[in-house]
Amino acid sequence: MFKRYLPILEWMKIYDRQMFSSDAIAAVIVTIMLIPQSLAYALLAGLPAEVGLYASILPLIAYTIFGTSRTLAVGPVAVVSLMTAAAIGNIAVQGTEQYLTAAIALAFISGAMLILMGIFKLGLFANFLSHPVISGFITASGLIIAASQLKHILGIEASGHNLLDILLALCNHITQTNLATVVIGIGAIAFLFWARKNLKNLLLRGGLNARLSDLIAKAGPVFVVIITTLITWGGNLQNQGVKVIGVIPQGLPSLALPPFDPDLWQQLFVSALLISVVGFVESVSVAQTLAAKRRQRISPDQELIGLGTSNLASSFSGGFPVTGGFSRSVVNFDAGAETPAAGAFTAIGIAIATLLLTPLIFFLPKATLAATIIVAVLSLVDIAALKRTWTYSRSDFSAMLVTIIVTLVQGVELGIIAGVGLSIFLHLHRTSKPHSALVGQVPGTEHFRNIDRHEVKTDKHILTLRIDESLYFANARYLEDRVYELVALTPTVKHLILMCPAVNLIDASALESLEAINARLKDSGVIFHLSEVKGPVMDKLKRSHFLDDLTGQVFLSQYTAWEALRTPEKAPL
Amino acid sequence: MFKRYLPILEWMKIYDRQMFSSDAIAAVIVTIMLIPQSLAYALLAGLPAEVGLYASILPLIAYTIFGTSRTLAVGPVAVVSLMTAAAIGNIAVQGTEQYLTAAIALAFISGAMLILMGIFKLGLFANFLSHPVISGFITASGLIIAASQLKHILGIEASGHNLLDILLALCNHITQTNLATVVIGIGAIAFLFWARKNLKNLLLRGGLNARLSDLIAKAGPVFVVIITTLITWGGNLQNQGVKVIGVIPQGLPSLALPPFDPDLWQQLFVSALLISVVGFVESVSVAQTLAAKRRQRISPDQELIGLGTSNLASSFSGGFPVTGGFSRSVVNFDAGAETPAAGAFTAIGIAIATLLLTPLIFFLPKATLAATIIVAVLSLVDIAALKRTWTYSRSDFSAMLVTIIVTLVQGVELGIIAGVGLSIFLHLHRTSKPHSALVGQVPGTEHFRNIDRHEVKTDKHILTLRIDESLYFANARYLEDRVYELVALTPTVKHLILMCPAVNLIDASALESLEAINARLKDSGVIFHLSEVKGPVMDKLKRSHFLDDLTGQVFLSQYTAWEALRTPEKAPL
Repeated sequence: MFKRYLPILEWMKIYDRQMFSSDAIAAVIVTIMLIPQSLAYALLAGLPAEVGLYASILPLIAYTIFGTSRTLAVGPVAVVSLMTAAAIGNIAVQGTEQYLTAAIALAFISGAMLILMGIFKLGLFANFLSHPVISGFITASGLIIAASQLKHILGIEASGHNLLDILLALCNHITQTNLATVVIGIGAIAFLFWARKNLKNLLLRGGLNARLSDLIAKAGPVFVVIITTLITWGGNLQNQGVKVIGVIPQGLPSLALPPFDPDLWQQLFVSALLISVVGFVESVSVAQTLAAKRRQRISPDQELIGLGTSNLASSFSGGFPVTGGFSRSVVNFDAGAETPAAGAFTAIGIAIATLLLTPLIFFLPKATLAATIIVAVLSLVDIAALKRTWTYSRSDFSAMLVTIIVTLVQGVELGIIAGVGLSIFLHLHRTSKPHSALVGQVPGTEHFRNIDRHEVKTDKHILTLRIDESLYFANARYLEDRVYELVALTPTVKHLILMCPAVNLIDASALESLEAINARLKDSGVIFHLSEVKGPVMDKLKRSHFLDDLTGQVFLSQYTAWEALRTPEKAPL
Repeated sequence: MFKRYLPILEWMKIYDRQMFSSDAIAAVIVTIMLIPQSLAYALLAGLPAEVGLYASILPLIAYTIFGTSRTLAVGPVAVVSLMTAAAIGNIAVQGTEQYLTAAIALAFISGAMLILMGIFKLGLFANFLSHPVISGFITASGLIIAASQLKHILGIEASGHNLLDILLALCNHITQTNLATVVIGIGAIAFLFWARKNLKNLLLRGGLNARLSDLIAKAGPVFVVIITTLITWGGNLQNQGVKVIGVIPQGLPSLALPPFDPDLWQQLFVSALLISVVGFVESVSVAQTLAAKRRQRISPDQELIGLGTSNLASSFSGGFPVTGGFSRSVVNFDAGAETPAAGAFTAIGIAIATLLLTPLIFFLPKATLAATIIVAVLSLVDIAALKRTWTYSRSDFSAMLVTIIVTLVQGVELGIIAGVGLSIFLHLHRTSKPHSALVGQVPGTEHFRNIDRHEVKTDKHILTLRIDESLYFANARYLEDRVYELVALTPTVKHLILMCPAVNLIDASALESLEAINARLKDSGVIFHLSEVKGPVMDKLKRSHFLDDLTGQVFLSQYTAWEALRTPEKAPL
């Protein structure tokens, strides 16, 4: 039972030298890629750059111990960083001590929630996020993130948590644009787009093998970081107004308990829940994609614990919320990582970088980091998904569109809440009118079919309504309406039979409705029967008073009911 | 089409003298009963007593025109009045002009929402309120209302919107209890309980006929009102500290537009939605009960319009939110009302009372009104329902219990939100793991059955998973997990067939999952097939790219799939 929560015990048993070397090579590559990413996403979250590095050390080690994916690379990611900024932005001012404290608390609450969900096997919370909502949310987040980084490209001040605010702020400050910054920013963006499209082919033609070419091409951001840092340093561009990362405290993060502040926790509760669920959904989908390629398995419930401990570890070491990232996990996989140990080695790599390399990135322009973010998130924007979903299903499309619009206009939290709310509403709407049919006897058989579609025998004193869905609160009222309508429209009816071959569940609301139907039909002189009730449903009904009060009977088969109740046929004259 | 929205046109055609006299008699009785009720519920809502009368004139006329129940009696009711107090209590102080303005605005917003729901046929919003939630909510509200009225019985000051606050406030002021008030209050309560139990039998024994005895017994509150008013007047008890209704402005309400104040509307939005839905659910269930007794029908969508116009009418005439009330509708029905015209006649009765009788109730003690409220709402409290629900279904029980506890501790709005949220969550939880089975061929037949339950033929290269539920966002991820688990545990598998005879719907999330399954199985060298896909589902799949990408085929029957894919049997050695 202890082992269940420690997947590391399983793969450590078979760990060997060959795995070690594969993992180590992958770790080196991921480390190089993760350094600029972690700095960039910390800035996106409104935090000092070094916090991104802190969030890329202990969380990775925690995931190595508790995670079930062999190749998932954990750390700061774009969407979660944006959600962090939105969550804390309401509570504290960027750059203050309170802001950092709130970020640390957010990682703690989010980690605790994930662990609780994992222990109580509540991964199904993720089921609330339908695919159109997630897809719409990520598209809208990508647009907001890209817009929010434009200020760094232009070298101006502008902030906001939704697209309108950000664009307005940009317009207000556009005159303060700094030319040198723009040159670096646009140059970096152009290079990154070019590299993504052409660098791999160039390297292939240059004689490198396919895998190496691919990895180098994916490391495009690293080249940009090095080149623009050198240019800025050489040209003394920070004196021209180019904003650089500047001094980063050298050394490992110090361990500390997150602040115990119930008021703060309460303020962050909903945000932490949203971040947990969104982060989990994203991470699990990456992990599943990679696991399937090697016929491995991940355990979603244990993933909750893996990500939860990662967030706790982030919180204890002064970091902010983390989760599994798509691009770096793919790089980790492609670079040959075989076990989660690669994550631990990456953590060591980042720790060394934190100790030694920070002076070197003093001259790294913020515009460069913004450029890497913009290019990364624009690949998340999937406008074509809107069209695909429109073609497939109008109701899924509307959930997606509402998510995108509310996210863009009102911000990430309301966006995801609106999307989830709407898709649950639409689902209940869809099941609130279950398929049902009046049925009659197929002459000469024991079969009963829809009277609108088949030539069947009916009886003016008997109505048989077959219901093709479980009965629960969302459709209980519809059933009542349907029965009352039928009875009101058929003055000759004496018996109403509810035929239940497809009813797998009758919840307490539906039971009340059946009791109400029974009582009201009694008042209007109609006897109420059931037929073909499944065993488990019948067992449950026996625990209520319904069967005692039922005016009619429960028939095992519809045919028995029909034979017992129908008007004897007159002999032909 | 115009006619659809005006049910009055239908019954007016057949209106005759006999109906008129039945309706008129019922109206007199309901008027007598409604006067103390409307005063009492206005006080419960924290409003001046006359506002209750205003809310019992025009709203009734609106319902006569737009309502579909022949016997529903509309006006202020207990639970909606409590919700009104809770909604406005956060915004304004009782007794101020702002408080009244907010109540009027609340009726307006609630009316507008109901009408919109009616036009867009969104009565299904009411489906979100499962029966255990409604039942728990009403029980808890009844307890809160009863507790909130104790201050009037004791003659002290105490207020709050949840049980704890109210009880604490009562304790703090208990020493200021007014003896004369207590005598009147307890006396009134005792009489009302006695009357409910014994008055009818006494009258029957006294020689009155059954129907009249019943009606008189139900008019118990009227006697109490008259008697305690006379006692207070005769004994000059208001000088002993007994609080009385006092001066009520004589005359009809003046018509006015509700305040146009977007800020106020926004603050009241959620409250108005909750009041609309709760009021609608309560009203429709009363209307349906009564309609069924006479084999009449009501139209839930038109009821939304009927109740919506009633609330607009209330708002335009200085009233507060109204809905159909249980006890007065039953009295209306028993007294012989035949058409909604009885409601209009009741409105005339209340209008006359407002013009003429208000000076007579100057000496009506507030303790008397509190007593009528307490006795009325305690009949709503149904603790036994908790036990019944526990026996029937643990998950419905938990929804009910949470609703009761949160309502009592946190107030009505959070209570109902928590209950609805939990019941939707539990429902999604229940359907998130659909029933599924690995199936094999029943030897010598074309039938396929669960391999765990039947002796069936299988093939080590083929897995057939039959899924017994529609595929949508809540169970899409489970399907993925299940498939990956199967494939990971069965290294020999080459074909995976998803058998879909019970799948009525595949939403966009489930489509994504099928696409992911297809792609991931492809990566691990397994071919993915479907069998027995229903026509409408297939039509929808054709609108996506899924069928183009599918590595395997779609088979019309599972038997065809089996025959096409299975390993040819070796001839016996």
